[in-house]
Amino acid sequence: MTTSANGRRRPPTIHDVAREAGVSRGTVSRFLNGGHYVSPAARRSVEAAIRKTGYVVNRHARSLSTGRSDSVAFLLTEPQEKFFEDPNFNVLLRGCTEHLARHDIPLLLMLAATDDDRRRLTRYITSGHVDGVLLVSSHSGDPVAAELRAAGMPLVACGKPMGLGSKVSYVAADDRDGAREMVRHLLDAGRRRIGMITGPLDTPGGTDRLAGYREVLAEAGLPYDPALVAEGDYRRAGGEEAARRLLSRAPDLDAVFVASDLMAQGVVNALHQLGRSVPDDIAVGGFDDSAAATAVTPALTTMRQPYDRISAEMVRMLLAQIAGEDTAGVILPTELVVRDSA
Amino acid sequence: MTTSANGRRRPPTIHDVAREAGVSRGTVSRFLNGGHYVSPAARRSVEAAIRKTGYVVNRHARSLSTGRSDSVAFLLTEPQEKFFEDPNFNVLLRGCTEHLARHDIPLLLMLAATDDDRRRLTRYITSGHVDGVLLVSSHSGDPVAAELRAAGMPLVACGKPMGLGSKVSYVAADDRDGAREMVRHLLDAGRRRIGMITGPLDTPGGTDRLAGYREVLAEAGLPYDPALVAEGDYRRAGGEEAARRLLSRAPDLDAVFVASDLMAQGVVNALHQLGRSVPDDIAVGGFDDSAAATAVTPALTTMRQPYDRISAEMVRMLLAQIAGEDTAGVILPTELVVRDSA
Repeated sequence: MTTSANGRRRPPTIHDVAREAGVSRGTVSRFLNGGHYVSPAARRSVEAAIRKTGYVVNRHARSLSTGRSDSVAFLLTEPQEKFFEDPNFNVLLRGCTEHLARHDIPLLLMLAATDDDRRRLTRYITSGHVDGVLLVSSHSGDPVAAELRAAGMPLVACGKPMGLGSKVSYVAADDRDGAREMVRHLLDAGRRRIGMITGPLDTPGGTDRLAGYREVLAEAGLPYDPALVAEGDYRRAGGEEAARRLLSRAPDLDAVFVASDLMAQGVVNALHQLGRSVPDDIAVGGFDDSAAATAVTPALTTMRQPYDRISAEMVRMLLAQIAGEDTAGVILPTELVVRDSA
Repeated sequence: MTTSANGRRRPPTIHDVAREAGVSRGTVSRFLNGGHYVSPAARRSVEAAIRKTGYVVNRHARSLSTGRSDSVAFLLTEPQEKFFEDPNFNVLLRGCTEHLARHDIPLLLMLAATDDDRRRLTRYITSGHVDGVLLVSSHSGDPVAAELRAAGMPLVACGKPMGLGSKVSYVAADDRDGAREMVRHLLDAGRRRIGMITGPLDTPGGTDRLAGYREVLAEAGLPYDPALVAEGDYRRAGGEEAARRLLSRAPDLDAVFVASDLMAQGVVNALHQLGRSVPDDIAVGGFDDSAAATAVTPALTTMRQPYDRISAEMVRMLLAQIAGEDTAGVILPTELVVRDSA
């Protein structure tokens, strides 16, 4: 609180922040609207001044003055079951909620399982009820990103939307590099018949992780054997089924790289049912480092996706875009987490 | 499609429906806005006419003419983990989404885990972005229902909001009667040392199911022993912990009625770890008939909550309230489902 001329305490204003930071009110305003055209030095001064004065953005007053709704949609175009089953969504949703909360912006969760849901929600979003969209939609051919961009909606996708090039902002983990590191880890452990269960091959996580797997096998002088590769659907039951398919085609498998932890959980279950021990008979490497990785015995060796950074970057880029900044893509590194399965 | 005077086919309008049904346009309009002041006979005529003409409500045009947003919030004031863990929310959310879809109304999912989330979301809801709220909030002392009612928002709660009397519409299962039926089932199977793990005692599901348990014990001439009752939190780990507490206080327990299937899943796990067999040593009766009931071995004998009817009634009452109808409470019966645990 600040003591005003008449001695009454009042909440600090943008003027107090500017005075404390020694910058203009316009600089503080640009900082609050996403931070573009603010020098690193000015940014640090403003951040310190906000902390010192205890200034809190009055979103409601701002939305009245700007005509904005001051809300952001988290739009998921996946079946509802998948949303509840896959722990990745929980983590991503929590991260986005928390990063938006720092700007006092509410998150509206929207589940578009059908074309009709998508049409209804797109209509709502583009009718001025929402300022921007955090999109979690993996499949190519999903028209929602193109529709929202055509309507001029600020938009940041989680994962690179296929077929839209650089017209849509996105934040993604480095899928190819992560896959390369995991397959190298399996090779270093002496495995030579390494299979792979991919994600859906109409998703970048599907194709890019497969590409990394193929590259490293080729670099190691090992042949690429299509019998060792099965396509999965990022679901537990899909992983189980793919593991059975793979093992019936290649009973001499000694390792399998699985493109998500949830599928890998299913793979470990299936291997146990088929009488194979993990990792002694068959090593299993996952991807995500989600809650599924430690919900199974043996706990999964996996590639950690930096979900907290992904959600922070998605929110940062969306607010910048709402403030007028152009689109961009951000690729973040993954990290090998060695546990017991490989 | 209908052929107009100039021979071009055009979508059917409310006039076509009224003509086909032999009622006034006002009657069709009242039917579409929730159905109050429409006689059963007129309702049937309008429904048949809508099917015959293929009329679809043009929500967007209506929202432009009425100033409404034509959207509904599904507001959950629980920690995010609970939302993902408890299969009841999945079922309820799907039901509400589907019943709203029949009216072409999108559902916005809002998770209010903290007071700040609640404040942000209430502000958004009451700023005209949403026409009504389906509220899933169990705890007493949660101010959200009172706040939304004070702001004049149409509102239907799932479960009776404690302390608000009849000022808030709600749809609830008959908790007391359901509990009575389960405890009678345990008595009929010859059990005499019947414990209970309740829901949180600041929720109606917590107190009403406990009341049913006490009543039936008294009717059977059995004493009420507080050592046989433990309070749970509707979570799996909470059920596990409550079962251990109960068994350390009353090692001669021969049955336990658990106020939710998710907790009962934890109870069965804990009993197995303590070397007790279910149902031979200790019978376990659940509540909900959620996915948790069949995710455990032995499968749970439980009280089925009519989630499809609950979500259908919540949507029906909310649309009626948006159209001007007064508040009401709806209580729906539960049903005993006998499986293997009791």
